[in-house]
Amino acid sequence: MQFVASEHPHRRLNPLTGQWVLVCPHRTQRPWSGQQEKAQKNELPEFDPSNPLCPGVTRPNGIETPAYESTYVFENDFPALVESVPVPPNSDDPLFQTAGARGNCRVMCFHPKSNLTLPTMSAAEINIVIGEWINQFNELSAKYAWVQIFENKGAAMGCSNPHPHCQIWSCSFLPTEPQLKQDRLRAYYATNDRPMLADYVERELQRQERIVIENPDWLVVVPFWATWPFETMLISRNNNKRINDLTLEQRHNLAVTIKELTTKYDNLFQCSFPYSMGWHGAPTGPEHAHASSAHWTLHAIYYPPLLRSATVRKFMVGFELLAMAQRDLTPEQAAQRLREVDGKCHYLNKK
Amino acid sequence: MQFVASEHPHRRLNPLTGQWVLVCPHRTQRPWSGQQEKAQKNELPEFDPSNPLCPGVTRPNGIETPAYESTYVFENDFPALVESVPVPPNSDDPLFQTAGARGNCRVMCFHPKSNLTLPTMSAAEINIVIGEWINQFNELSAKYAWVQIFENKGAAMGCSNPHPHCQIWSCSFLPTEPQLKQDRLRAYYATNDRPMLADYVERELQRQERIVIENPDWLVVVPFWATWPFETMLISRNNNKRINDLTLEQRHNLAVTIKELTTKYDNLFQCSFPYSMGWHGAPTGPEHAHASSAHWTLHAIYYPPLLRSATVRKFMVGFELLAMAQRDLTPEQAAQRLREVDGKCHYLNKK
Ligand SMILES: O=P(O)(O)O[C@H]1O[C@H](CO)[C@@H](O)[C@H](O)[C@H]1O
Ligand SMILES: O=P(O)(O)O[C@H]1O[C@H](CO)[C@@H](O)[C@H](O)[C@H]1O
Repeated sequence: MQFVASEHPHRRLNPLTGQWVLVCPHRTQRPWSGQQEKAQKNELPEFDPSNPLCPGVTRPNGIETPAYESTYVFENDFPALVESVPVPPNSDDPLFQTAGARGNCRVMCFHPKSNLTLPTMSAAEINIVIGEWINQFNELSAKYAWVQIFENKGAAMGCSNPHPHCQIWSCSFLPTEPQLKQDRLRAYYATNDRPMLADYVERELQRQERIVIENPDWLVVVPFWATWPFETMLISRNNNKRINDLTLEQRHNLAVTIKELTTKYDNLFQCSFPYSMGWHGAPTGPEHAHASSAHWTLHAIYYPPLLRSATVRKFMVGFELLAMAQRDLTPEQAAQRLREVDGKCHYLNKK
Repeated sequence: MQFVASEHPHRRLNPLTGQWVLVCPHRTQRPWSGQQEKAQKNELPEFDPSNPLCPGVTRPNGIETPAYESTYVFENDFPALVESVPVPPNSDDPLFQTAGARGNCRVMCFHPKSNLTLPTMSAAEINIVIGEWINQFNELSAKYAWVQIFENKGAAMGCSNPHPHCQIWSCSFLPTEPQLKQDRLRAYYATNDRPMLADYVERELQRQERIVIENPDWLVVVPFWATWPFETMLISRNNNKRINDLTLEQRHNLAVTIKELTTKYDNLFQCSFPYSMGWHGAPTGPEHAHASSAHWTLHAIYYPPLLRSATVRKFMVGFELLAMAQRDLTPEQAAQRLREVDGKCHYLNKK
């Protein structure tokens, strides 16, 4: 029997982490009688006087959110990380190792209106968001080793406030995922004298099997090693190392790409598509300021949970938590569906 | 300022994976207006003629589930892994690596009645489940490198059928998590000449800070490096390597321990507490039959998602997916709550 990736269970290696993913292409055929997500409602008001992220509303801590008109950034009222915190004592027991963690958590509203999301904002408005990401990154990267810009969108992704916003958590240390990438990207560069993701982009352009969006500055693919059903990577084609390297032209193209990708996502199951996304680039802060970043390529990752429809998600549970990542359709199948779905006209604007 | 673990954000190392966890003790104080889980209903019927896991019901594929009286095991009708499958061709491109994956997926019903769960079954009935785990393990471990016994309990953990059951996925290869443990346990043994988890048990018994249940054969702790809010490890105190090493006495004590732990879980938020759990022990199959397993200690891991109440869970999303594991209360706080909650009388049997 000949091996056919779209039919036969197999494993694929994620070269960024060194971990394998189990691909089980025919599992989506099983019947589903488990949990159904609530479909996202589209009937949010533009302004909700009880939502602390809306302009002019007083937050639980008594601070008033100003009457902002584009983006608005503030310190998280319940930060996971704080700047000034004592360091735990050293332990020489390998089973009880602790380490310090300093940082900073900010919230960034994308727009004053609660009933918008990135795909329903204009490319010009998204460009303002990108500009503010860069402002924040410029400031925070001077001090911190890692500045994690991320968006949790939708209740299914633990988003506790429907107003369009993202978060920026800065860390005095390199967290697990960036550290893994740092090591693997560096090793690849040492062997191949090329950034891994530059080679990867080139090969995906040759193969044309997993591409979702392609333009001169950006490539969106469902990575060969994707874990989540409709996971994508949005990769710089310009050897950018960090988000604050982008030219105005690249920023403009990024806004257009984000609008197109998130429109495709929404159109796929005709819902406000939930996901967690975030940016990865070369580490920062005094510690990394003089280190080479030649092995890095700026990229964003989208992890959307939905699998079958607006209400049926993939659960990363028993086998996935205890053994290994597992997916129920091939990355090529996911890419084809995302490639074919309309990325120009949002379903809410149709008919 | 003096470091206080229950107040100050810090990191802890998981020595089984080499990964750090960010502990943010005061984050549970933030208000929550995000997704609420549906509380588990307790009004399931004993028998549901439309549920294929009930005795005597015909499954979608036409096979009738027999009129079983204790446990019942069958091959999953939609298996992620199958025994006979072609191997993908070799690739010399490090960015597109695939590997074969053979295996087998079984479903195991714990009891004929749909309205029972492990905490509401008797210890004697749980002992029968343990016996069947061992039967299955004996058979499957002869052939496969890894036999993953796991239970997804509750809709919040992706369980698509409320009938009490678990799954057994066997793999021709060592998946990611077991491979990580294999490497780390082996390295610890090489340095210390003791199994890591035997040392860990000893130290937890001395420290008495994270213990939930303690008896001569088993220790249940919230590990020092726990990721999920009420995560626990149930560890053998008898140097057992695999589940089929257990004596009848150890099996009996295990049944009692499982009943007590799951009763505590249910009583914590007065609901049928969702979790994913599974067993980890020394690898198996022809490949590992002659390798030393001296570095291993049999243990089960429980990953429950709930954080604040029966309806508010922890989301492992943006920062956690993109950067690192993060928790909102200390393992010591979680252990204290689990230690203090009643483990003898289930809340449904009270008053
Ligand atoms: O096999 P089930 O119970 O239908 O499915 C559940 O467990 C599997 C193994 O952890 C997961 O892959 C699925 O996402 C989950 O919904
Ligand atoms: O800060 P939020 O949006 O309230 O919280 C959300 O994102 C955080 C960062 O990924 C997670 O730790 C929380 O579990 C999640 O609910």
